[in-house]
Amino acid sequence: MSLIENGWYREMNEQWAGYSVGLKIDKILFEEKSNYQDIIVFKSTTFGNVLVLDGCIQCTERDECCYQEMIAHLPLSCHASPKNVLVVGGGDGGVVREVLKHNSVEKVTLCEIDDKVVEVCKKYLPNMSKSLDDKRCHVHIGDGVQFMKEHKDCFDVIITDAPDPIGAAKGLYEIDYYKCLKAALKPNGIICSQGENMWLDLDIVEKLLSGCRSLFPSTGYAYASMPTYAGGHIGFIMASTNPDIRFNDPVRTYTDTEVNKMEFSFYNTDLHRASFVLPTFAKKVLFPETKNGALHDKDT
Amino acid sequence: MSLIENGWYREMNEQWAGYSVGLKIDKILFEEKSNYQDIIVFKSTTFGNVLVLDGCIQCTERDECCYQEMIAHLPLSCHASPKNVLVVGGGDGGVVREVLKHNSVEKVTLCEIDDKVVEVCKKYLPNMSKSLDDKRCHVHIGDGVQFMKEHKDCFDVIITDAPDPIGAAKGLYEIDYYKCLKAALKPNGIICSQGENMWLDLDIVEKLLSGCRSLFPSTGYAYASMPTYAGGHIGFIMASTNPDIRFNDPVRTYTDTEVNKMEFSFYNTDLHRASFVLPTFAKKVLFPETKNGALHDKDT
Repeated sequence: MSLIENGWYREMNEQWAGYSVGLKIDKILFEEKSNYQDIIVFKSTTFGNVLVLDGCIQCTERDECCYQEMIAHLPLSCHASPKNVLVVGGGDGGVVREVLKHNSVEKVTLCEIDDKVVEVCKKYLPNMSKSLDDKRCHVHIGDGVQFMKEHKDCFDVIITDAPDPIGAAKGLYEIDYYKCLKAALKPNGIICSQGENMWLDLDIVEKLLSGCRSLFPSTGYAYASMPTYAGGHIGFIMASTNPDIRFNDPVRTYTDTEVNKMEFSFYNTDLHRASFVLPTFAKKVLFPETKNGALHDKDT
Repeated sequence: MSLIENGWYREMNEQWAGYSVGLKIDKILFEEKSNYQDIIVFKSTTFGNVLVLDGCIQCTERDECCYQEMIAHLPLSCHASPKNVLVVGGGDGGVVREVLKHNSVEKVTLCEIDDKVVEVCKKYLPNMSKSLDDKRCHVHIGDGVQFMKEHKDCFDVIITDAPDPIGAAKGLYEIDYYKCLKAALKPNGIICSQGENMWLDLDIVEKLLSGCRSLFPSTGYAYASMPTYAGGHIGFIMASTNPDIRFNDPVRTYTDTEVNKMEFSFYNTDLHRASFVLPTFAKKVLFPETKNGALHDKDT
């Protein structure tokens, strides 16, 4: 089944069967099967350039700020002084761009398995990939799990910017992957991973969060509004080996002036706090035994 | 251009050009042009029955809880004792169902212009329309503006459950409509209206909010995640003649036990508070001069 019909890109997927986000195509800019996945970049009529991997919309120029800012600033703002950061996946460079806005960061490593993604994004998504040439950024083309096995006790923050668990990224949603993340963290380090959609994938989120709870003393779940992702928002799974962390109460906060200076289009401190508050149906499944579960696991 | 192709309903609209939510159709249940609009009801494969008016998805059985609960409980929970409530539009009955969960409510009037919508929803959306037969509910088929002109100083809460401002409902997004709402409110009454999407319709939201500010001493803007509405969330515009009201701090709050008893699938008190916290890009446009505008106008 072609996902392109009558000039529209129609994202259809068994993970969210019967539901589809469509974007009108102005022009197909790139289409190729790499060693790992199908890559499409098209210019949409109203959302800017769009990157699609294995049939799933990864980012659009119009709304990428939500995903990149939240997945970066949620964990970084919960860490007193993040110096060494790892981004697994995220070959478009948008997360690296956000990580580098934090002055404490001395080094960020982008570990992307598919060099074709990096190459294509440098050409067609320049505002996302622009920071990949920063001297603090090291791009490593290779497998994230292997890289972490070679870098234990190393990172203050690890961000997993992965596609959905239906193709090449399936392994990034399994417990062994989270064990690997834990081993690669410095003491009191923080992880943040793409955490799917509460309306469409609550079973996946529940399984991921349960897995995290079996490994980490602190876990959390946040979400934010994202029109071009299936279901209209995207979730974020957070965990830390620090038992005293409160993910909904960041240790570093930003004034409006700082928000402007750091060029946050989406993120701000009030939104950070609010993003952990869940609708009743999700709270019941994800935090069934906590009195105030939507806010924090540790409120039990 | 047909919105039904290859077994999918594709919602396409100039208000959100180039973007489309699609739902797979199991079976078309009803299709007719009433005196006011095109009405379609279809059974979707994964979102239950779906009501479409003039080409716009109004509600699906799977995610209607978000819209109906938020547009009802946001204003009702900010009122100490709402007794007389008016719902303009909302012929599906879902908002009335939620309003009647509040024991203080003695009477709710549904003022729907199109009796065909009420008739169709009674047949195909029974869980939404079930409360229309409640003895506290009065269904009035007629024009909302005319009804309010005949009922001044009458309502504690008025909820405008309107389609988007592109068809029959265009007038419900103009300043004269808000003057009419204000005149129909009792002292310290509260209004809450469908408030579009921040990503797609920020200009419309800004205009509505500016209009409200010219009429009411207190205004607010909230939003919540809604997969089947264009852009993935839906906003809510609130206003009151009570200058001391704080919309993000409801006067009536609910314990988990009460949330269960009132059968809130989506709404809860923490979520009420969080729903007023806006992403930076929207905060800058909608609350440009407030220090903490995302939370409340009155924080200036």
